[in-house]
Amino acid sequence: MSNSDKPDVDLQDRSIYRAWTSHTIRYNDLDPLGHVNNAVYSTFVEAGRTALLQPLFMENASLKIDTVIVRSVMDFHKELRYPGAVDIGTSVLRIGKTSVVFANGIFGRETGVCHASGEAYLVFFDLVERKSTPPPKVFRDALEAVMIG
Amino acid sequence: MSNSDKPDVDLQDRSIYRAWTSHTIRYNDLDPLGHVNNAVYSTFVEAGRTALLQPLFMENASLKIDTVIVRSVMDFHKELRYPGAVDIGTSVLRIGKTSVVFANGIFGRETGVCHASGEAYLVFFDLVERKSTPPPKVFRDALEAVMIG
Amino acid sequence: MSNSDKPDVDLQDRSIYRAWTSHTIRYNDLDPLGHVNNAVYSTFVEAGRTALLQPLFMENASLKIDTVIVRSVMDFHKELRYPGAVDIGTSVLRIGKTSVVFANGIFGRETGVCHASGEAYLVFFDLVERKSTPPPKVFRDALEAVMIG
Amino acid sequence: MSNSDKPDVDLQDRSIYRAWTSHTIRYNDLDPLGHVNNAVYSTFVEAGRTALLQPLFMENASLKIDTVIVRSVMDFHKELRYPGAVDIGTSVLRIGKTSVVFANGIFGRETGVCHASGEAYLVFFDLVERKSTPPPKVFRDALEAVMIG
Repeated sequence: MSNSDKPDVDLQDRSIYRAWTSHTIRYNDLDPLGHVNNAVYSTFVEAGRTALLQPLFMENASLKIDTVIVRSVMDFHKELRYPGAVDIGTSVLRIGKTSVVFANGIFGRETGVCHASGEAYLVFFDLVERKSTPPPKVFRDALEAVMIG
Repeated sequence: MSNSDKPDVDLQDRSIYRAWTSHTIRYNDLDPLGHVNNAVYSTFVEAGRTALLQPLFMENASLKIDTVIVRSVMDFHKELRYPGAVDIGTSVLRIGKTSVVFANGIFGRETGVCHASGEAYLVFFDLVERKSTPPPKVFRDALEAVMIG
Repeated sequence: MSNSDKPDVDLQDRSIYRAWTSHTIRYNDLDPLGHVNNAVYSTFVEAGRTALLQPLFMENASLKIDTVIVRSVMDFHKELRYPGAVDIGTSVLRIGKTSVVFANGIFGRETGVCHASGEAYLVFFDLVERKSTPPPKVFRDALEAVMIG
Repeated sequence: MSNSDKPDVDLQDRSIYRAWTSHTIRYNDLDPLGHVNNAVYSTFVEAGRTALLQPLFMENASLKIDTVIVRSVMDFHKELRYPGAVDIGTSVLRIGKTSVVFANGIFGRETGVCHASGEAYLVFFDLVERKSTPPPKVFRDALEAVMIG
C-alpha cells in the first residue's frame, strides 16, 4: 500500500533519508505485550523532525513562526524490543504553499531493519496572526536541503 | 481529504461511533507548545480500541489470539488544552480476512468539537503459530456489533 | 517508615486531603508487568498539584513566579490495574521561606484503597531574577487554605 | 538533606556508581516549562535498574521471581534541557531480607553535572506464591557485585 503520492519513493529504503537522529529504547516504552507501544513511534518521528526544525526555530525566534501537525500516517512493519536503539531518518517529501510533508523511517540501529515508516504533514503557523502562513525563505531553504529527489 | 475508502463516512461526525470511552487530560500530556502532544492522541485512540477489545481478550484468553497494529492514520483538527477531558469514539469500518480497520474520533467532552479523527488497521495474530490468522467467530461477532453501516 | 516530620500525619488517610482531582488509567500507562508503571504515579500527583496551582499561576501571570520541584518521595502500597480511575488527594504539609511541601495520596476510585502516598517539595522561583523567592501573599493564602492541621 | 542512612555516601558523586547506562532526551520528554518533566526522571532511573536486572530475570525466568518498587526518593538538582543525553549511574546501597535499595544518579553526558539523585526500594516477589521472598543466591550475588563499599 502506497502512502505517498510520489509512487517511486520507498519509505522503507534508508537511502532516501537526508537527516538522522538516534534514540535509545527505554523500559517504560514497553506495553503489556512486551514491545514498544505504538505511541512511542510518534515520539520517535517527532524527535527526527525536531532535530531538524528546533535549531531553525531557535535561530529565527523573532519571526514568530511555528509548525503544527495536521496529519500523521505510520506503517508498522516489525515490533521493537528492549533493549536497543533506533536510527530515525527524516526527509522532506513535498513543500506546499503553507505546508510541508516529512517522510520518516525508524530503523534498528544494530540490524538496519525498517520497523516503521510514515509521513507527517505540518502547517506553518504565524504565532502573531494565529493563522497558517507560507514558510519564510530561511525555513524553505532548510527544508529543501533535506528534500528527496 | 478522505482517509477512508468508504467516501460517505465522515470521521468527524459523532453519530458514526458505536462505542465510547472517556479520558482526562493530564498536565504531563502537554508539550512545550502548551497543548497536548500529538503522541497522546495515539494513546487516546488505543484506549478506545482497548475498551472494546480487552474484555474480548480476557474472556477468550484460551484462544491465544492477539491483535497487532499495522497502520495508523490521524488527522489533527484542533489542539487540545489542559485542563479538560475527551470522549473517544470507536467503530469498525471494515473487517478483512485477517484484519480489522477501526474509525476513531476524539471529541472535547464539554464542547463536542472533534479534535482529531483517524483510522487504525490491526491484524489478528495467532500467539502460538506466530502468524496472522482470521479472527475467531466470537471476535468477528463483537466487531460486527460496532461496525458502521 | 515515616516520610513526614509531622509524625501524626498518616498520608494514607483520605481525610487529610483538602483538594481532589480524578484521572482515568490508560492502557498505555501499563508496563510489561501489566500494571501501571511507577512513573505514572509522578504524573498523577503532579496532576493533583497542578489542579491547585495552575489557576493561581494563570490569574497571577504578571508576578512572573513559578515553582520547581526539588524533591519527591513516593511510597507504593498496592499496584494499579487497568481499567480504572484514581482519586488524587493533595494537601499542603508545610510552607517554608521559599518552599512548600505537598502531601499526596492516590486512591482507587471504586475501592477507596490507597495505592500510593508521598510528598513533593517545591521551591518558588522568580522567572525574572532566575532565583528562588518567597511566595507572594496570594500564593501563600491559597496554599494555607489547603494546609493540614 | 541526607536521603540515605549511609551518611557518608554522596549520591551526587559519580564515583559511587557501579553500573552505567545512557539515554537520549526526547522532545516529548519536555513539558510546558520547556524542560524534562519530573516523571521522566523515574523512567531514567528505572532504565538504570532494568539494565542490571533484566538479564538476571531473563536468565532465571524459571525461578518465577520479580521485583516490585515500594518506595522512591528523588532529589532534583538541576533541570534537563533538550537536546542532550544522560548517563544514569546505579549501585546497590543495601540488601535486606527480602528487599534491595538502589542508589541512582542522573548526569549530563556532556557536562558530567548531576541533575538528580535518589534511591529506589524494591522487594523481591515470588510470582507463584504471590508474596515477598528472599532473593535467590544468583540475584544476591549479582546485586552484591554492584554494592557500594
